[in-house]
Amino acid sequence: MSAGVSLDCLQTPALLLDVGRLEHNVREMADLCHTHGKALRPHVKSHKTIEIAARQRQLGAVGLTAAKLGEAEVFADAGFDDLFICYPLVGAGKLRRLMMLAQRVRVSTIVDDVDAATELAAAARAAETTIEVLLKIDLGMHRVGVAEPQVDRLAHAVATLSGLSLRGVCIHEGETYGEPDPAQRRTLARERVGRLVEIAERLRRQGLAIDVVSSGATPAVRDVVDIDGLTELRPGNYVFYDAMQAGLGVVPEDRCALSVLATVVSRAGEGRAIIDAGAKALTLDRGVHGLELLEGYGRPRSRSDVTITALSEEHGWLLVAPGSDLRVGDRLEIVPNHACAVVDNFDGLTLVERGAPAGEWSVAARGRMT
Amino acid sequence: MSAGVSLDCLQTPALLLDVGRLEHNVREMADLCHTHGKALRPHVKSHKTIEIAARQRQLGAVGLTAAKLGEAEVFADAGFDDLFICYPLVGAGKLRRLMMLAQRVRVSTIVDDVDAATELAAAARAAETTIEVLLKIDLGMHRVGVAEPQVDRLAHAVATLSGLSLRGVCIHEGETYGEPDPAQRRTLARERVGRLVEIAERLRRQGLAIDVVSSGATPAVRDVVDIDGLTELRPGNYVFYDAMQAGLGVVPEDRCALSVLATVVSRAGEGRAIIDAGAKALTLDRGVHGLELLEGYGRPRSRSDVTITALSEEHGWLLVAPGSDLRVGDRLEIVPNHACAVVDNFDGLTLVERGAPAGEWSVAARGRMT
Repeated sequence: MSAGVSLDCLQTPALLLDVGRLEHNVREMADLCHTHGKALRPHVKSHKTIEIAARQRQLGAVGLTAAKLGEAEVFADAGFDDLFICYPLVGAGKLRRLMMLAQRVRVSTIVDDVDAATELAAAARAAETTIEVLLKIDLGMHRVGVAEPQVDRLAHAVATLSGLSLRGVCIHEGETYGEPDPAQRRTLARERVGRLVEIAERLRRQGLAIDVVSSGATPAVRDVVDIDGLTELRPGNYVFYDAMQAGLGVVPEDRCALSVLATVVSRAGEGRAIIDAGAKALTLDRGVHGLELLEGYGRPRSRSDVTITALSEEHGWLLVAPGSDLRVGDRLEIVPNHACAVVDNFDGLTLVERGAPAGEWSVAARGRMT
Repeated sequence: MSAGVSLDCLQTPALLLDVGRLEHNVREMADLCHTHGKALRPHVKSHKTIEIAARQRQLGAVGLTAAKLGEAEVFADAGFDDLFICYPLVGAGKLRRLMMLAQRVRVSTIVDDVDAATELAAAARAAETTIEVLLKIDLGMHRVGVAEPQVDRLAHAVATLSGLSLRGVCIHEGETYGEPDPAQRRTLARERVGRLVEIAERLRRQGLAIDVVSSGATPAVRDVVDIDGLTELRPGNYVFYDAMQAGLGVVPEDRCALSVLATVVSRAGEGRAIIDAGAKALTLDRGVHGLELLEGYGRPRSRSDVTITALSEEHGWLLVAPGSDLRVGDRLEIVPNHACAVVDNFDGLTLVERGAPAGEWSVAARGRMT
């Protein structure tokens, strides 16, 4: 944009992306994985943005992780040719789309269940293709994933299914978000990855080809990246970080690259103010995975006199300290609690360089629900 | 769609709209307002959909209410010519857009503050137009709105501002969502509207032209629609209703027209299942305005053996009763806690007639953040 354009010109709520911080975050993770000889396959559900994925690839990402087939299709259209859909794909319609995607890019996915794997294999054979799969294992997250005692049975079933190619094992260490103490989180994360590596070794001893041993979750990466036998990391949130990551001590808050710019629209009530960012912008997240770890609904930057105490759809309620000079028309830059959820609400990201607007990126895979 | 197409063909998560229930809901509210001689100006933030607004207009709505200028612009483009933006419009950029909108449709908005009203008036004069305004009054919601003791001062200030035309007064009875007892809610709602009518009469006695006396909030409409002196109602949610409205006893749950269709994608864990609708589909709302009134994150229809206990971004956690026959691939139709918030997550609504897909409507004003 031309000189003289300032953030004041933006209409709010707007989603701001500090390009310098983004670059720092993306490069640091790439370097970390490179140093330790791990493949980095970042999760795009956090940013859904072609330009960010392109930078991740430029700095060495081996491919991308997606939550939705529709996200993977958007990135395939944009020329990304190695996509891992880390989500159980269920139903004839989705399996058809997966096979179409497999005609044009390298695509892999997960299985946690023999029946689902059998259906996936049948769809692959019908399409005369082979789908690479990782076994998704539950080591404590208790979400998707085969329980540890059933891993061997599933592994051998998958290995014998024509249409599937068993490539490895993976976990999501989402439970690390629930452990605020950094030392205990480190212990927890290393224990999980240690068990995953053991499982991989056991399956190899049984004659299975387990090339990929993959773990996700931004808060755990630094804790596990040096573990021998782990081959791949799939963090997503790290491109932005957010109040949740800062609260966990993963990074200081000034590393957060994403913020919501909001305007004070009412100061009619004593001791309170209303901003034009509500739950439809900031979301009600106070953590992830249903955890409610954070006070308030985002952290206003450079303002110690306000806290965001409640959200309705289009209104944020601020508690304003006595003596504050906050006025209608004032702008707040708010570090969101959970960046991945907030990005999904906006069609575009306004780039910020040296404090001024510097362009816009489309959140290209936003709204790809299926 | 052609005969034989069933909901099984839809990929999930999908947003379903039962056309019969929608019609019932829209017609009932239109009839109620007509019977009592009240103008109905429905809030489009709940549906953001041209086709629904068109039906509301066909059945007598005098105009539409919007939360965002961008929503109003979408409806103006679609031929709606009487739009009330019930949100304080702050900042030069938004005031410019408001004036452009006023060149092509009848548009009105709210003020709750002398300074903001003065800026709005200056922008109107600069554009050589006049903007109709209602005074937004806070009678207990404690969000946007001038406090009662300052109403007269604001009213006279606005009345003297060239560029503004004072048309009336309005409230949002959002606090009725916090009162689960129907009798007490009725008392509360009538007390609020009674005070609003008194304020209007007092301002008229002071020589001000108060033609519009307007109240919002779906749970309160039936309680206040007969009150003399109230001229207009602005409910939004009623087109769909949702688990929150059913929980308040506003309607039985089988009146809810909107649902999220989801698929069970994992049953790997004992006593639990995972569906492909998480917070990015269902939202974390357990009420509105920050209220947390509901247990769980939506109500699965026709299944008493499951409850939705937690959501991460793309996963819903189900607690499954012992002995349940729930399997991977099964579909759940989930009545969302808060319909207005859920609609905002989807680009389209799948119409359902007699249990089968019958077309799709675009959520045309989705993502209009500013």
